[in-house]
Amino acid sequence: MTKPKKQQNLRIIPLGGLGEVGRNMMLLEYGREILIIDMGFRLPEEDMPGVDYIIPDISYLKEKEEKILGVVITHGHYDHIGAIPYLIKKIGPVPIFTASLTKGIILKRQKDFPDQPRLEINKVKDGSKIKVGPFKIEFFRMNHNIPGTLGLFIETPIGNILDTSDFKFDPAPINDLPTNFKKLRNFSRRKILILMSDSTGAEEEGHSLSEKEILENIKEIFKEAEGRIIAATFASLINRIQQIIRLSEKFERKIAIEGYSMQTNVEIAKNLGYIKFKKKGAVIRTRYIENYPDSKITILCTGAQGEGSAALMRIANREHPFIRLKKGDTVILSSSVIPGNERTVQILKDDILRQGAKVFHYRMMDIHAGGHAQKEELEKMIKIMEPKFFLPIHGQYSMLVSHGEIAKKAGLAEKNVIVAENGQVINLTQNKIFIEKKEVPSDYVMVDGLGIGDVGEIVLRDRKMLARDGMFVIVAVIDRQTGKVKGSPDIISRGFVYLRESKTLLKETRKKVINIVNKAVGSGKAVNWSYVKNEIRNKIGQFLYSKTQRRPMILPVVIEV
Amino acid sequence: MTKPKKQQNLRIIPLGGLGEVGRNMMLLEYGREILIIDMGFRLPEEDMPGVDYIIPDISYLKEKEEKILGVVITHGHYDHIGAIPYLIKKIGPVPIFTASLTKGIILKRQKDFPDQPRLEINKVKDGSKIKVGPFKIEFFRMNHNIPGTLGLFIETPIGNILDTSDFKFDPAPINDLPTNFKKLRNFSRRKILILMSDSTGAEEEGHSLSEKEILENIKEIFKEAEGRIIAATFASLINRIQQIIRLSEKFERKIAIEGYSMQTNVEIAKNLGYIKFKKKGAVIRTRYIENYPDSKITILCTGAQGEGSAALMRIANREHPFIRLKKGDTVILSSSVIPGNERTVQILKDDILRQGAKVFHYRMMDIHAGGHAQKEELEKMIKIMEPKFFLPIHGQYSMLVSHGEIAKKAGLAEKNVIVAENGQVINLTQNKIFIEKKEVPSDYVMVDGLGIGDVGEIVLRDRKMLARDGMFVIVAVIDRQTGKVKGSPDIISRGFVYLRESKTLLKETRKKVINIVNKAVGSGKAVNWSYVKNEIRNKIGQFLYSKTQRRPMILPVVIEV
Repeated sequence: MTKPKKQQNLRIIPLGGLGEVGRNMMLLEYGREILIIDMGFRLPEEDMPGVDYIIPDISYLKEKEEKILGVVITHGHYDHIGAIPYLIKKIGPVPIFTASLTKGIILKRQKDFPDQPRLEINKVKDGSKIKVGPFKIEFFRMNHNIPGTLGLFIETPIGNILDTSDFKFDPAPINDLPTNFKKLRNFSRRKILILMSDSTGAEEEGHSLSEKEILENIKEIFKEAEGRIIAATFASLINRIQQIIRLSEKFERKIAIEGYSMQTNVEIAKNLGYIKFKKKGAVIRTRYIENYPDSKITILCTGAQGEGSAALMRIANREHPFIRLKKGDTVILSSSVIPGNERTVQILKDDILRQGAKVFHYRMMDIHAGGHAQKEELEKMIKIMEPKFFLPIHGQYSMLVSHGEIAKKAGLAEKNVIVAENGQVINLTQNKIFIEKKEVPSDYVMVDGLGIGDVGEIVLRDRKMLARDGMFVIVAVIDRQTGKVKGSPDIISRGFVYLRESKTLLKETRKKVINIVNKAVGSGKAVNWSYVKNEIRNKIGQFLYSKTQRRPMILPVVIEV
Repeated sequence: MTKPKKQQNLRIIPLGGLGEVGRNMMLLEYGREILIIDMGFRLPEEDMPGVDYIIPDISYLKEKEEKILGVVITHGHYDHIGAIPYLIKKIGPVPIFTASLTKGIILKRQKDFPDQPRLEINKVKDGSKIKVGPFKIEFFRMNHNIPGTLGLFIETPIGNILDTSDFKFDPAPINDLPTNFKKLRNFSRRKILILMSDSTGAEEEGHSLSEKEILENIKEIFKEAEGRIIAATFASLINRIQQIIRLSEKFERKIAIEGYSMQTNVEIAKNLGYIKFKKKGAVIRTRYIENYPDSKITILCTGAQGEGSAALMRIANREHPFIRLKKGDTVILSSSVIPGNERTVQILKDDILRQGAKVFHYRMMDIHAGGHAQKEELEKMIKIMEPKFFLPIHGQYSMLVSHGEIAKKAGLAEKNVIVAENGQVINLTQNKIFIEKKEVPSDYVMVDGLGIGDVGEIVLRDRKMLARDGMFVIVAVIDRQTGKVKGSPDIISRGFVYLRESKTLLKETRKKVINIVNKAVGSGKAVNWSYVKNEIRNKIGQFLYSKTQRRPMILPVVIEV
C-alpha cells in the first residue's frame, strides 16, 4: 500500500456562468489534476455588434493540458455544450462523459465545424459511476426541460460535491420519471461538503410549473383551435416538442416540422427514444399540408423568440414558400422571452395579429416553464442536502445573491455561503472555504465568423462608433513639388448623412480640407504628415459637429505624389 | 343666423401612437378644419443606431397650416409633448391648450432648443370649456401618474367624442382626487358617438394598483432600511416623487435630489403646487449628505432604467462626485422596465449588489404602477360610456387588438370596433364608421442631432452594416502613364479585425488589389474605373470573407495621377 499523499485543498474555478446566464464552465482542481464540467457559450450583449457568441477564456488551462482528466457535460443545451467545437481542439484529446441524447446533439453539431478532432464521448446515465483521477463521479437523473439531464455526486479526497446542473423538481414530467427524492436523500446521507446549485430561478417566487400543468394549458388551446395550430418553441426544448406531438396525435392533427434545428433535434431524440410517436405517419412534409383540412394540421417550428432566420419569422414575414398566415390560425409562442428580445417578440406578435391569426403567449397563459427550480424548490434542495458549504451557480449576480439568501434562510452560516463570480478561485478544505486573492482569466472571448477572440475592445468600440454616426473618409492627394492639394479631395462617407442631399456640406468640407493642408504645408519646412492628418481629423470633426451635431469617425488619408 | 352648412364626415387621423407605444399624435378633421391632439415622440428601436427620437410625419399637414385650429396636449409626458419643438415651427403659430403643469414642462423644455418661436399656450383645467372651429372641448381630470392629466369630451357637428388620454381609475391617488365617476357618467348621458381609449394596459389582467397601495409598499422598505435610501424613478413620475418625499419626511430623512431633469421637474411641480413639502429644509444639497447619519438620508434620483448618463448610473459606476454605494444602502428602482431595456437594468442591478447595497425592484414588490388602466378598468370605462363606436388608441398592435376584444365583450358590435393604425383615416358619420382606402403618410421621422428626417433607410442600413463587420477602405493610386498601381495601396479599416494582428491578411489583400487593377487596366483600352472599383469590391469582399467569414463594407478609392 502506498502512503496516502498529503491532503491538499480542492479548488473550484468557474470560467463562465457565474454572474451571467449562459457560458457555463467550471473546473475542479485537486493536486494539479483538473476535471471540467460543461463547456457552454452565451449570446452577445446588445452592444457587441457582429459578435456571434461569447465563450469562456481557457488561458488558465494553457500548459496544463496534460493534467486535464476529462470533461463532464450535464445536458445538451447550448449554454452547456456550445463552446465544445471552439475549445476542445485547444485542450487536446480528453474523454467526454455525458448522456446519450447529449452525445447525439454534440456529435450532430460537430459536423457544422470543419477540421474538428474526433471526439471520445463516453455515454453515462442515471446511476453510472466513473473514476477519473481523484474524483469518483456518480451521475443521477434530474428533471429539466431536456431529457438526459444529469446531476453529479462527486467524491473527492476532501469530501463530497453535489452539482445539481440545471434542474427543477417535477412531480409530473412528460415522458420522464418524477424527481427521485429518495436518491437525493441517499446522497445527503453520505454527507455533502459543498452543494453547487442552479440559480437561474432564484428570483422567482414559489414552485416552477410541472410539465403536466403546461400540457393541460396547451391542451385548452388545442381544444379551442378551429384552424391550423402553429406552435413555436426552441429546438432544444425536447419536452415541449413532445407535448405538442402528443396533443397533435390526440386531436388527430398531422404534424409538419419546420426549421432545420427542429427537424434535426426531433430526429436525434426520436432515434434515442426520447421523443415518442403513438402512430406512424403522424409527421408530414410541409408541402402536403394543403391536402388536409386546417383543423387537422399542426405546424411545429422554431422562432418563438423572433430569431431572424427561424421558421416562424419567415412565416410571419410572408417569406415562407408554403405557409401564409390567415384568419383561423392559432399561433402558440411557447418559450419565455430571453431578456433583450422583448421588442423583437412584440413586433413578431403584432405582425402575426395583423394577418388575422390568434396568438397565445406565455405571458397570457402558463404555456411555458423555464425548466429551472424556483425559490421553494431551491430551498428544498438545500434542506435535503444539508451541505456544509454552498455555492450558487448558473445565473446573473442578482440571482446568485438571491440564492445565497435562500441558503442562509435554510440554515447555513453566512460564512459558509459563497457568492462568487467567474475567474474567482474557491479554495476548499474539509473545514474551510475561502476565495483566493488572485483570480484566473475569465474574460469574454468573442466568436465572430472564423475569428475566436480576435474581436476585442478596440474593434468593438470602433463598430459602436461607426454604428452611431457613421464614417467620413477624406482622401487628399498632395503635389510633392508645390505642397498643394491636387484637385478636389475625395470624400467617402457612409451612415452619416444622406450624401445626395448634403452637397453644400461636402463642398464646404472640401474647401476646409484644402485650407487646412495648404496652411500646414505652406511654411516650406519639412511636412509633418501626422500633424496634418490630426488637423484634418479635429477641425473637420468640429465643423461637421457644428453643422449636424453628429460625430462620424473621421479618417484622413494623405497621399503625396 | 347663417344657414347651417351641409353636414360633413368627421375624419380621425392618427399620425402616431396606434401600433406603437409613444409618439402620440392625432388629428380630428371636419370640413377641412383640423384639431391636433398631442405631439409626442418615442425612443428609437434597437436597430436604429445613432437615432435620438422618432417623431410623427406631418406631411399631411403641409399646405393645410391655415386650417389648423389648435393643439390640445393631454399631459406632460414626452410621448405626448416630445415632438413639439420639432413640429410646432413647421405648422406655424397655433394656440396650444393644456394644464398648467404641462405648460410648465413644455416651456422649460423649449429653452433647450435654439430658435424656437414663442409659444401661445392657454391654460385649461378640469371643467374648462373651449370652442375651436367646429369643436367644443370640455376638459376633465383623469388619474394617471402625472398630475394635470386631462381627458377630452369633444362636441362635434356629428356627435360627441370622448378621448380618455392616458388614464387609470384610482380610488386613492396621492396628492390628487379619486376618479370622478359621476362626471364620467354625465358625459355618457350626453351620448358618446365614439370612445377613444388608452390601450397601454389592455393586455394586463385585473385592475391597476392604486398609488396608495404603492405608497404602502414603499413604506415597508423605508421601515426596514437602516442606512441611506436611494430611490430612482423617472423624472416625469411626479406622483412617485411625491410619495418618496412624503415618506422621507415621515421617517425624518433629508432629501438630496440628483439629476438635472429630476431637479427641474420637482421645481416646476412644487411651484405649481403639484408637489408638496410638509416642512421647509427637507431638501439638502448632495454635498452635505455626510453631515447627517445614513439613516436620515434619502437620495432621489433618475436612472431606474439604467439610462447611460443618469444619476443612478453614475453612482453605480463610481463616477459620482459625492456618492459611493456601500453596505447598508437600500436602492429602490421604482419604474417598470421599458421593453428592450431589461438587459441594461439587470446589469445595473448586479453592479449595485456587487457594492453591497440592497436592491428593491418592481418585480420583487409592487413598488411601481404603470399608470395605465388594465382590463377591468378598460371594460368599466367602455360600460360607463356606452359609445356607439370604439377606437382603441395608444399601444402596440397587440394591445389595440386586446382592447378591441374587451369592447366586444362589453357589448359593442364587431363592426363598430375599429382597430386602426397610424396613417389610416377613420371616417365617421352619425351612423357609420369606416377606414378610408387611401392612407396619409405616417412614416418614422428620425431625429439625429440637428437633423430631422434626414436619416433614412439608406443611412440606417449603412450604420447597421458598419456595426456588424466594420469597414475596409482601399486607396489605390494609379499612374496615368503606365496604368499601373503606384506603390502599395493604402488600407484603412475599422471594426473589422484587429489590424496589428492581421499583417499577413493586409499584405495579401494589397497584392490582390494590385493584381485586380493591373489586370483590368492592362488591356490598353480606355479604362472603365467603375468596373475596376466593382472588381475590387467583389473580389476583395470574397477574399476577406473566405479568410474571416465577415463582410466588412468595402469602399475602393481609385486615384489617377
